[in-house]
Amino acid sequence: MTARPAFGGIEAGGTKWVCGLTDERGDLVATDVIPTTTPDETLGRAVRFFAGHETIRAIGVGSFGPLDLDPASPTHGSITTTPKPDWSDTDLLSPLRQAVGVPIALDTDVNAAALGEWRHVAGAGLHSLCYITVGTGIGAGAVVGGRLLHGSGHLEFGHLRIPHDTARDPFPGSCPHHGDCLEGLASGEALRHRWGRPAEDLDDPAVWHLEAEYLAHAIANAAYALAPQRVIVGGGVAQHPALLPRLRERLARDALRQQAVVTW
Amino acid sequence: MTARPAFGGIEAGGTKWVCGLTDERGDLVATDVIPTTTPDETLGRAVRFFAGHETIRAIGVGSFGPLDLDPASPTHGSITTTPKPDWSDTDLLSPLRQAVGVPIALDTDVNAAALGEWRHVAGAGLHSLCYITVGTGIGAGAVVGGRLLHGSGHLEFGHLRIPHDTARDPFPGSCPHHGDCLEGLASGEALRHRWGRPAEDLDDPAVWHLEAEYLAHAIANAAYALAPQRVIVGGGVAQHPALLPRLRERLARDALRQQAVVTW
Ligand SMILES: Nc1ncnc2c1ncn2[C@@H]1O[C@H](COP(=O)(O)OP(=O)(O)O)[C@@H](O)[C@H]1O
Ligand SMILES: Nc1ncnc2c1ncn2[C@@H]1O[C@H](COP(=O)(O)OP(=O)(O)O)[C@@H](O)[C@H]1O
Ligand SMILES: [Zn+2]
Ligand SMILES: [Zn+2]
Repeated sequence: MTARPAFGGIEAGGTKWVCGLTDERGDLVATDVIPTTTPDETLGRAVRFFAGHETIRAIGVGSFGPLDLDPASPTHGSITTTPKPDWSDTDLLSPLRQAVGVPIALDTDVNAAALGEWRHVAGAGLHSLCYITVGTGIGAGAVVGGRLLHGSGHLEFGHLRIPHDTARDPFPGSCPHHGDCLEGLASGEALRHRWGRPAEDLDDPAVWHLEAEYLAHAIANAAYALAPQRVIVGGGVAQHPALLPRLRERLARDALRQQAVVTW
Repeated sequence: MTARPAFGGIEAGGTKWVCGLTDERGDLVATDVIPTTTPDETLGRAVRFFAGHETIRAIGVGSFGPLDLDPASPTHGSITTTPKPDWSDTDLLSPLRQAVGVPIALDTDVNAAALGEWRHVAGAGLHSLCYITVGTGIGAGAVVGGRLLHGSGHLEFGHLRIPHDTARDPFPGSCPHHGDCLEGLASGEALRHRWGRPAEDLDDPAVWHLEAEYLAHAIANAAYALAPQRVIVGGGVAQHPALLPRLRERLARDALRQQAVVTW
């Protein structure tokens, strides 16, 4: 490692944790990918990655959840009740704090992504944007007036109600709570359930036509309810090459306001 | 008038303008209702209402639109292109500024309502809320982190896409742009077109059952995309006595987060 690390970051996912160190300018100087096993083992490896770098000034953590993000709560900084075995009530911050005595910020993975996009990538110069991830599930984070939108907890954007023409798409939806909410119709899990194979293996144009329609509804709703200057779409499902062209076409047809430029 | 007026306000509507003066504490000391005729006549009467009150310190205007709210625009403070005859390109602020030399703030009627609810009525102590009006059309304003959400222009909440079961409700929707968006399905205009009579004359429980379902979808989407601590519903249609009980029941059934308390 040549440059002195100034900032640390963790993307704490259910499958893997990606840890990174950057220099003063935010350029990466070191990374480590840790498989998500038990909390002790995973957090232990993350602590070892950051420990000993005396020049680190702050660490940002974007984590899977649900998270206790209420600063007034005694369990602030913990994962609360997750279906992921062993991880309920895991305190994410204390082990890091003890090992590295610097300020540590925690937010949801999508909020961290929204903030990162806004500060460093697609959002430069904007005061608002909405980042939507279409992966196993669907989530979103928003920056409004230069700050992450927190409101009462995090956004539950995946559960938006959108039009569902059951004559054309009889699939009842995969959301355990709502059936055919946005996530129930358009997430990676929904695609796998509806078509019987993972999204990356689906090539029928009809699949991506329908998917583009559902995501266009979601983007329209984000634009109408939040009025962001830009909407950014990420996540595994968004990587499929058949999706973006259809989505752009569909959004143009809906005459969505120009401000809601969609970038990948 | 006994108390000395300290603040002025105008609710500038397409049918009437309501002008008011309050004392230091915000209690009304005088009001005037002006029919909306030509811009010259209407603004002239509003100016006469405020003129001569030397103790006024500021005036707030909530207006129908669309409005140019961009402070950098040369036509800032104007109504832009409205279907309302004579009112396109009307400068709302200059005549008031010339007559009363105090700071004047302008925003959309729903944003003014959202701010008013937040400061003085249902929102006391909250940092976020969403105000939805269900009248001739449907609109919304939101307070986020103690400030009105402006984003890129005002919210176009009325055009949210929501589920529409055409087998149950074959009405194609009344929105000239989208047909069956929220406003096309659930506004006062939509009710009048679907059922052939104004909303206040509709008593069939099936009407209000369907209406509650559409508004529950809208409230869910507001909660999921904005995470406000409270949702407030106003407007003419919301006054119908058959609506509120059905809407509350429906929201309870959807297990909407408790934070999204709906008040009238
Ligand atoms: N190239 C691809 N095309 C379409 N779908 C993909 C592709 N790669 C991954 N996926 C789907 O994306 C989902 C995983 O999303 P991802 O954002 O990588 O992770 P997660 O949401 O679990 O954090 C899975 O449902 C997978 O089938
Ligand atoms: N008591 C009522 N019950 C149901 N609908 C009503 C009632 N009063 C007014 N409306 C409907 O509300 C709409 C007018 O809404 P309002 O908020 O008063 O004005 P606007 O939206 O035009 O500013 C009309 O469509 C009217 O039919
Ligand atoms: Zn759902
Ligand atoms: Zn519409």
